[in-house]
Amino acid sequence: MPHIALSEGLAGIRGLLAFRPEMTNPLRGFMEILMRGDNSLTKGERELIATYVSHLNDCFFCQSSHGATAEYYLQCDIGFIERVKTNYESAEISEKLKALLAIAESVQRGGKHVTDEQVQKARELGATDYEIHDTVLIAAAFCMFNRYVDGLDTWAPDDLEFYRKGVKERAEGGYTNYDPYR
Amino acid sequence: MPHIALSEGLAGIRGLLAFRPEMTNPLRGFMEILMRGDNSLTKGERELIATYVSHLNDCFFCQSSHGATAEYYLQCDIGFIERVKTNYESAEISEKLKALLAIAESVQRGGKHVTDEQVQKARELGATDYEIHDTVLIAAAFCMFNRYVDGLDTWAPDDLEFYRKGVKERAEGGYTNYDPYR
Repeated sequence: MPHIALSEGLAGIRGLLAFRPEMTNPLRGFMEILMRGDNSLTKGERELIATYVSHLNDCFFCQSSHGATAEYYLQCDIGFIERVKTNYESAEISEKLKALLAIAESVQRGGKHVTDEQVQKARELGATDYEIHDTVLIAAAFCMFNRYVDGLDTWAPDDLEFYRKGVKERAEGGYTNYDPYR
Repeated sequence: MPHIALSEGLAGIRGLLAFRPEMTNPLRGFMEILMRGDNSLTKGERELIATYVSHLNDCFFCQSSHGATAEYYLQCDIGFIERVKTNYESAEISEKLKALLAIAESVQRGGKHVTDEQVQKARELGATDYEIHDTVLIAAAFCMFNRYVDGLDTWAPDDLEFYRKGVKERAEGGYTNYDPYR
Protein backbone atom coordinates (compact mmCIF):
# COMPACT_ATOMS: atom_id res chain seq x y z
CA MET A 1 0.00 0.00 0.00
CA PRO A 2 1.37 3.43 -0.93
CA HIS A 3 2.91 5.46 1.90
CA ILE A 4 0.52 8.37 1.17
CA ALA A 5 -3.14 8.52 0.06
CA LEU A 6 -3.05 8.19 -3.75
CA SER A 7 -5.94 7.64 -6.18
CA GLU A 8 -6.64 3.95 -6.58
CA GLY A 9 -6.05 2.45 -9.98
CA LEU A 10 -3.24 4.80 -11.03
CA ALA A 11 0.05 2.88 -11.10
CA GLY A 12 3.56 4.17 -10.48
CA ILE A 13 4.24 7.78 -11.31
CA ARG A 14 0.68 8.28 -12.52
CA GLY A 15 -0.73 8.27 -9.01
CA LEU A 16 2.01 10.67 -7.93
CA LEU A 17 1.35 13.15 -10.72
CA ALA A 18 -2.37 12.98 -9.97
CA PHE A 19 -1.51 13.77 -6.33
CA ARG A 20 0.84 16.64 -7.25
CA PRO A 21 -0.35 17.82 -10.68
CA GLU A 22 1.83 20.96 -10.66
CA MET A 23 4.84 18.69 -11.21
CA THR A 24 3.41 17.22 -14.41
CA ASN A 25 4.29 19.96 -16.88
CA PRO A 26 7.93 20.55 -15.98
CA LEU A 27 8.58 16.80 -15.76
CA ARG A 28 6.86 16.24 -19.11
CA GLY A 29 8.99 18.96 -20.73
CA PHE A 30 12.18 17.56 -19.23
CA MET A 31 11.41 14.00 -20.36
CA GLU A 32 10.39 15.07 -23.85
CA ILE A 33 13.75 16.77 -24.48
CA LEU A 34 15.78 14.10 -22.72
CA MET A 35 14.13 11.02 -24.22
CA ARG A 36 12.74 12.26 -27.55
CA GLY A 37 14.50 15.51 -28.46
CA ASP A 38 16.96 15.80 -31.35
CA ASN A 39 19.81 13.45 -30.59
CA SER A 40 22.11 11.02 -32.34
CA LEU A 41 21.08 8.46 -29.71
CA THR A 42 17.85 6.92 -30.98
CA LYS A 43 14.70 7.04 -28.89
CA GLY A 44 14.98 3.26 -28.50
CA GLU A 45 18.56 3.50 -27.22
CA ARG A 46 17.57 6.16 -24.71
CA GLU A 47 14.65 4.06 -23.45
CA LEU A 48 17.05 1.09 -23.14
CA ILE A 49 19.40 3.15 -20.94
CA ALA A 50 16.40 4.19 -18.80
CA THR A 51 15.22 0.58 -18.56
CA TYR A 52 18.66 -0.69 -17.62
CA VAL A 53 19.14 1.88 -14.84
CA SER A 54 15.60 1.20 -13.54
CA HIS A 55 16.50 -2.49 -13.48
CA LEU A 56 19.67 -1.75 -11.48
CA ASN A 57 17.54 0.28 -9.05
CA ASP A 58 15.09 -2.64 -8.89
CA CYS A 59 12.15 -0.39 -9.83
CA PHE A 60 9.58 -2.72 -11.36
CA PHE A 61 7.21 -0.01 -12.58
CA CYS A 62 9.87 2.02 -14.40
CA GLN A 63 11.78 -0.91 -15.90
CA SER A 64 8.52 -2.43 -17.15
CA SER A 65 6.98 0.73 -18.58
CA HIS A 66 10.19 2.01 -20.19
CA GLY A 67 11.04 -1.56 -21.23
CA ALA A 68 7.72 -1.67 -23.10
CA THR A 69 8.52 1.67 -24.75
CA ALA A 70 12.01 0.45 -25.75
CA GLU A 71 10.44 -2.73 -27.12
CA TYR A 72 8.05 -0.62 -29.19
CA TYR A 73 10.69 1.71 -30.64
CA LEU A 74 13.21 -1.06 -31.30
CA GLN A 75 10.58 -3.48 -32.59
CA CYS A 76 12.23 -6.20 -30.55
CA ASP A 77 10.90 -8.87 -28.26
CA ILE A 78 10.98 -8.83 -24.48
CA GLY A 79 13.78 -11.44 -24.52
CA PHE A 80 16.07 -8.79 -25.99
CA ILE A 81 15.21 -6.28 -23.26
CA GLU A 82 15.85 -8.96 -20.62
CA ARG A 83 19.25 -9.77 -22.16
CA VAL A 84 20.25 -6.11 -22.07
CA LYS A 85 19.16 -5.84 -18.44
CA THR A 86 20.93 -8.96 -17.23
CA ASN A 87 24.04 -9.02 -19.43
CA TYR A 88 24.29 -6.17 -21.92
CA GLU A 89 27.87 -7.15 -22.81
CA SER A 90 26.57 -10.19 -24.70
CA ALA A 91 23.42 -8.52 -26.10
CA GLU A 92 22.97 -7.60 -29.78
CA ILE A 93 23.69 -3.90 -29.36
CA SER A 94 26.48 -1.68 -30.68
CA GLU A 95 29.83 -1.49 -28.90
CA LYS A 96 29.20 2.24 -28.46
CA LEU A 97 25.92 1.57 -26.64
CA LYS A 98 27.69 -0.99 -24.43
CA ALA A 99 30.24 1.66 -23.46
CA LEU A 100 27.43 4.12 -22.69
CA LEU A 101 25.61 1.50 -20.59
CA ALA A 102 28.83 1.03 -18.59
CA ILE A 103 28.78 4.78 -17.87
CA ALA A 104 25.08 4.58 -16.92
CA GLU A 105 25.87 1.71 -14.55
CA SER A 106 28.50 3.84 -12.82
CA VAL A 107 26.13 6.80 -12.56
CA GLN A 108 23.57 4.53 -10.90
CA ARG A 109 26.10 3.71 -8.17
CA GLY A 110 26.99 7.40 -7.81
CA GLY A 111 28.33 10.21 -9.98
CA LYS A 112 31.90 9.80 -8.81
CA HIS A 113 32.01 6.21 -10.07
CA VAL A 114 32.25 7.33 -13.71
CA THR A 115 35.90 7.03 -14.76
CA ASP A 116 38.03 8.82 -17.35
CA GLU A 117 38.68 5.39 -18.88
CA GLN A 118 34.96 4.69 -19.35
CA VAL A 119 34.45 8.05 -21.03
CA GLN A 120 37.57 7.58 -23.17
CA LYS A 121 36.38 4.14 -24.29
CA ALA A 122 32.92 5.46 -25.23
CA ARG A 123 34.57 8.27 -27.20
CA GLU A 124 36.87 5.84 -29.05
CA LEU A 125 33.78 3.84 -30.01
CA GLY A 126 32.22 6.94 -31.56
CA ALA A 127 30.24 8.51 -28.70
CA THR A 128 30.03 12.30 -28.86
CA ASP A 129 30.15 14.65 -25.86
CA TYR A 130 26.45 15.20 -26.39
CA GLU A 131 25.74 11.45 -26.19
CA ILE A 132 27.93 11.08 -23.09
CA HIS A 133 26.16 14.04 -21.46
CA ASP A 134 22.71 12.67 -22.23
CA THR A 135 23.62 9.16 -21.06
CA VAL A 136 24.72 10.58 -17.69
CA LEU A 137 21.58 12.70 -17.41
CA ILE A 138 19.22 9.86 -18.40
CA ALA A 139 20.87 7.56 -15.85
CA ALA A 140 20.72 10.30 -13.19
CA ALA A 141 17.08 11.12 -14.04
CA PHE A 142 16.03 7.51 -13.57
CA CYS A 143 17.82 7.46 -10.22
CA MET A 144 15.28 10.17 -9.38
CA PHE A 145 12.18 8.63 -10.97
CA ASN A 146 12.90 5.16 -9.53
CA ARG A 147 13.28 6.61 -6.03
CA TYR A 148 10.18 8.76 -6.43
CA VAL A 149 8.04 5.80 -7.51
CA ASP A 150 9.40 3.28 -4.99
CA GLY A 151 10.07 5.75 -2.16
CA LEU A 152 6.31 6.28 -1.91
CA ASP A 153 5.60 2.58 -2.46
CA THR A 154 3.31 3.11 -5.45
CA TRP A 155 1.27 0.36 -7.06
CA ALA A 156 2.97 -1.61 -9.85
CA PRO A 157 0.97 -4.44 -11.47
CA ASP A 158 2.93 -7.68 -11.99
CA ASP A 159 1.59 -8.43 -15.46
CA LEU A 160 3.91 -7.09 -18.21
CA GLU A 161 0.92 -6.80 -20.55
CA PHE A 162 -0.29 -3.92 -18.36
CA TYR A 163 2.74 -1.89 -19.44
CA ARG A 164 2.34 -2.73 -23.12
CA LYS A 165 -1.25 -1.51 -23.19
CA GLY A 166 -1.38 1.84 -24.97
CA VAL A 167 2.38 1.90 -25.53
CA LYS A 168 2.01 2.84 -29.21
CA GLU A 169 -0.08 5.91 -28.32
CA ARG A 170 2.29 6.86 -25.51
CA ALA A 171 5.43 6.37 -27.62
CA GLU A 172 4.05 8.26 -30.60
CA GLY A 173 2.28 10.95 -28.58
CA GLY A 174 5.47 11.64 -26.64
CA TYR A 175 6.01 12.74 -23.06
CA THR A 176 4.55 16.18 -23.70
CA ASN A 177 1.14 14.53 -24.02
CA TYR A 178 1.68 12.17 -21.09
CA ASP A 179 -1.61 11.85 -19.24
CA PRO A 180 -1.51 10.30 -15.77
CA TYR A 181 -5.18 9.35 -16.11
CA ARG A 182 -4.80 7.35 -19.31
CA MET B 1 38.77 18.10 -15.58
CA PRO B 2 35.16 17.61 -16.75
CA HIS B 3 34.49 14.47 -18.79
CA ILE B 4 33.08 16.57 -21.66
CA ALA B 5 34.05 19.97 -23.10
CA LEU B 6 32.28 22.54 -20.91
CA SER B 7 32.72 26.33 -20.82
CA GLU B 8 35.49 27.27 -18.44
CA GLY B 9 34.53 29.26 -15.37
CA LEU B 10 31.01 27.85 -15.00
CA ALA B 11 30.88 25.59 -11.93
CA GLY B 12 28.68 22.55 -11.33
CA ILE B 13 25.31 22.47 -13.03
CA ARG B 14 25.95 25.89 -14.62
CA GLY B 15 28.43 24.47 -17.11
CA LEU B 16 26.00 21.64 -17.88
CA LEU B 17 23.05 23.95 -18.52
CA ALA B 18 25.26 26.13 -20.72
CA PHE B 19 26.20 22.97 -22.64
CA ARG B 20 22.58 21.79 -22.95
CA PRO B 21 20.46 24.96 -22.65
CA GLU B 22 17.22 23.21 -23.69
CA MET B 23 17.21 21.53 -20.29
CA THR B 24 17.25 24.82 -18.40
CA ASN B 25 13.59 25.79 -18.57
CA PRO B 26 11.98 22.50 -17.54
CA LEU B 27 14.51 22.02 -14.73
CA ARG B 28 13.95 25.61 -13.57
CA GLY B 29 10.19 25.06 -13.51
CA PHE B 30 10.53 21.78 -11.65
CA MET B 31 12.87 23.26 -9.02
CA GLU B 32 10.73 26.37 -8.52
CA ILE B 33 7.65 24.28 -7.62
CA LEU B 34 9.58 21.71 -5.61
CA MET B 35 11.77 24.08 -3.60
CA ARG B 36 9.79 27.33 -3.49
CA GLY B 37 6.15 26.53 -4.38
CA ASP B 38 3.32 26.75 -1.82
CA ASN B 39 4.13 24.26 0.89
CA SER B 40 3.94 23.90 4.65
CA LEU B 41 7.63 22.94 4.55
CA THR B 42 9.53 26.23 4.57
CA LYS B 43 11.98 27.05 1.79
CA GLY B 44 14.78 26.74 4.34
CA GLU B 45 13.64 23.26 5.41
CA ARG B 46 13.48 22.14 1.78
CA GLU B 47 16.98 23.47 1.08
CA LEU B 48 18.20 21.66 4.21
CA ILE B 49 16.79 18.35 2.91
CA ALA B 50 18.51 19.00 -0.45
CA THR B 51 21.77 19.85 1.31
CA TYR B 52 21.63 16.76 3.50
CA VAL B 53 21.00 14.40 0.56
CA SER B 54 23.77 16.08 -1.45
CA HIS B 55 26.08 15.54 1.52
CA LEU B 56 25.13 11.85 1.64
CA ASN B 57 25.89 11.62 -2.07
CA ASP B 58 29.19 13.41 -1.42
CA CYS B 59 28.42 16.08 -4.03
CA PHE B 60 30.47 19.10 -3.00
CA PHE B 61 28.95 21.55 -5.48
CA CYS B 62 25.32 20.79 -4.57
CA GLN B 63 25.80 20.57 -0.80
CA SER B 64 27.73 23.85 -0.83
CA SER B 65 25.39 25.82 -3.09
CA HIS B 66 22.16 24.55 -1.47
CA GLY B 67 23.83 24.79 1.93
CA ALA B 68 24.45 28.50 1.23
CA THR B 69 20.81 28.90 0.18
CA ALA B 70 19.57 27.12 3.34
CA GLU B 71 21.87 29.33 5.40
CA TYR B 72 20.37 32.41 3.75
CA TYR B 73 16.72 31.39 4.26
CA LEU B 74 17.26 30.15 7.81
CA GLN B 75 19.55 33.04 8.76
CA CYS B 76 21.81 30.56 10.46
CA ASP B 77 25.54 30.05 10.45
CA ILE B 78 27.44 27.37 8.56
CA GLY B 79 28.02 25.52 11.84
CA PHE B 80 24.31 24.75 11.96
CA ILE B 81 24.30 23.38 8.40
CA GLU B 82 27.32 21.22 9.27
CA ARG B 83 25.56 19.86 12.35
CA VAL B 84 22.50 18.90 10.30
CA LYS B 85 24.69 17.18 7.72
CA THR B 86 26.78 15.21 10.17
CA ASN B 87 24.26 14.47 12.95
CA TYR B 88 20.79 15.89 12.39
CA GLU B 89 19.42 13.93 15.37
CA SER B 90 21.22 16.31 17.73
CA ALA B 91 20.72 19.49 15.66
CA GLU B 92 18.35 22.33 16.64
CA ILE B 93 15.56 21.35 14.25
CA SER B 94 12.00 20.15 14.85
CA GLU B 95 11.28 16.50 15.56
CA LYS B 96 9.10 16.47 12.43
CA LEU B 97 12.01 17.62 10.28
CA LYS B 98 14.22 14.94 11.84
CA ALA B 99 11.65 12.31 10.86
CA LEU B 100 11.55 13.72 7.31
CA LEU B 101 15.35 13.70 7.10
CA ALA B 102 15.27 10.00 8.10
CA ILE B 103 12.95 9.37 5.12
CA ALA B 104 15.26 11.40 2.86
CA GLU B 105 18.22 9.33 4.05
CA SER B 106 16.39 6.14 3.08
CA VAL B 107 15.46 7.55 -0.33
CA GLN B 108 19.14 8.36 -0.92
CA ARG B 109 19.98 4.68 -0.43
CA GLY B 110 17.12 3.63 -2.70
CA GLY B 111 13.33 4.03 -2.84
CA LYS B 112 12.62 0.66 -1.26
CA HIS B 113 14.52 1.60 1.90
CA VAL B 114 11.71 3.88 3.08
CA THR B 115 9.73 1.98 5.72
CA ASP B 116 6.12 2.16 6.91
CA GLU B 117 7.49 2.88 10.37
CA GLN B 118 9.46 5.92 9.16
CA VAL B 119 6.38 7.32 7.44
CA GLN B 120 4.19 6.55 10.46
CA LYS B 121 6.64 8.32 12.76
CA ALA B 122 6.76 11.42 10.52
CA ARG B 123 2.97 11.48 10.46
CA GLU B 124 2.71 11.19 14.25
CA LEU B 125 5.05 14.16 14.52
CA GLY B 126 2.71 16.22 12.35
CA ALA B 127 3.96 15.63 8.79
CA THR B 128 1.24 15.73 6.14
CA ASP B 129 1.05 13.46 3.07
CA TYR B 130 2.04 16.48 1.05
CA GLU B 131 5.17 17.02 3.13
CA ILE B 132 6.08 13.32 2.98
CA HIS B 133 5.58 13.35 -0.81
CA ASP B 134 7.73 16.44 -1.26
CA THR B 135 10.47 15.12 1.02
CA VAL B 136 10.71 11.95 -1.07
CA LEU B 137 10.73 13.93 -4.31
CA ILE B 138 13.34 16.45 -3.08
CA ALA B 139 15.58 13.58 -1.93
CA ALA B 140 15.05 11.75 -5.24
CA ALA B 141 15.67 14.92 -7.28
CA PHE B 142 19.00 15.52 -5.57
CA CYS B 143 19.98 11.92 -6.29
CA MET B 144 19.59 13.06 -9.90
CA PHE B 145 21.29 16.47 -9.65
CA ASN B 146 24.22 15.11 -7.61
CA ARG B 147 24.82 12.35 -10.19
CA TYR B 148 24.46 14.78 -13.07
CA VAL B 149 27.01 17.21 -11.61
CA ASP B 150 29.53 14.59 -10.44
CA GLY B 151 28.93 12.05 -13.22
CA LEU B 152 30.38 14.58 -15.66
CA ASP B 153 33.07 15.64 -13.19
CA THR B 154 32.18 19.32 -13.25
CA TRP B 155 34.24 22.03 -11.62
CA ALA B 156 33.45 22.80 -7.95
CA PRO B 157 35.56 25.49 -6.22
CA ASP B 158 36.74 24.56 -2.71
CA ASP B 159 36.08 27.95 -1.14
CA LEU B 160 32.64 28.12 0.52
CA GLU B 161 32.56 31.88 -0.06
CA PHE B 162 32.17 31.12 -3.76
CA TYR B 163 28.76 29.58 -3.06
CA ARG B 164 27.63 32.46 -0.81
CA LYS B 165 28.34 35.05 -3.49
CA GLY B 166 25.04 36.21 -4.98
CA VAL B 167 23.02 33.87 -2.78
CA LYS B 168 20.58 36.66 -1.77
CA GLU B 169 19.77 37.42 -5.42
CA ARG B 170 19.48 33.72 -6.25
CA ALA B 171 17.31 32.92 -3.23
CA GLU B 172 15.02 35.90 -3.74
CA GLY B 173 14.92 35.66 -7.52
CA GLY B 174 13.99 31.99 -7.33
CA TYR B 175 14.82 29.08 -9.60
CA THR B 176 12.66 30.45 -12.41
CA ASN B 177 15.22 33.19 -12.88
CA TYR B 178 18.23 30.90 -12.45
CA ASP B 179 20.90 32.02 -14.87
CA PRO B 180 23.79 29.62 -15.50
CA TYR B 181 25.95 32.56 -16.58
CA ARG B 182 25.55 34.57 -13.39
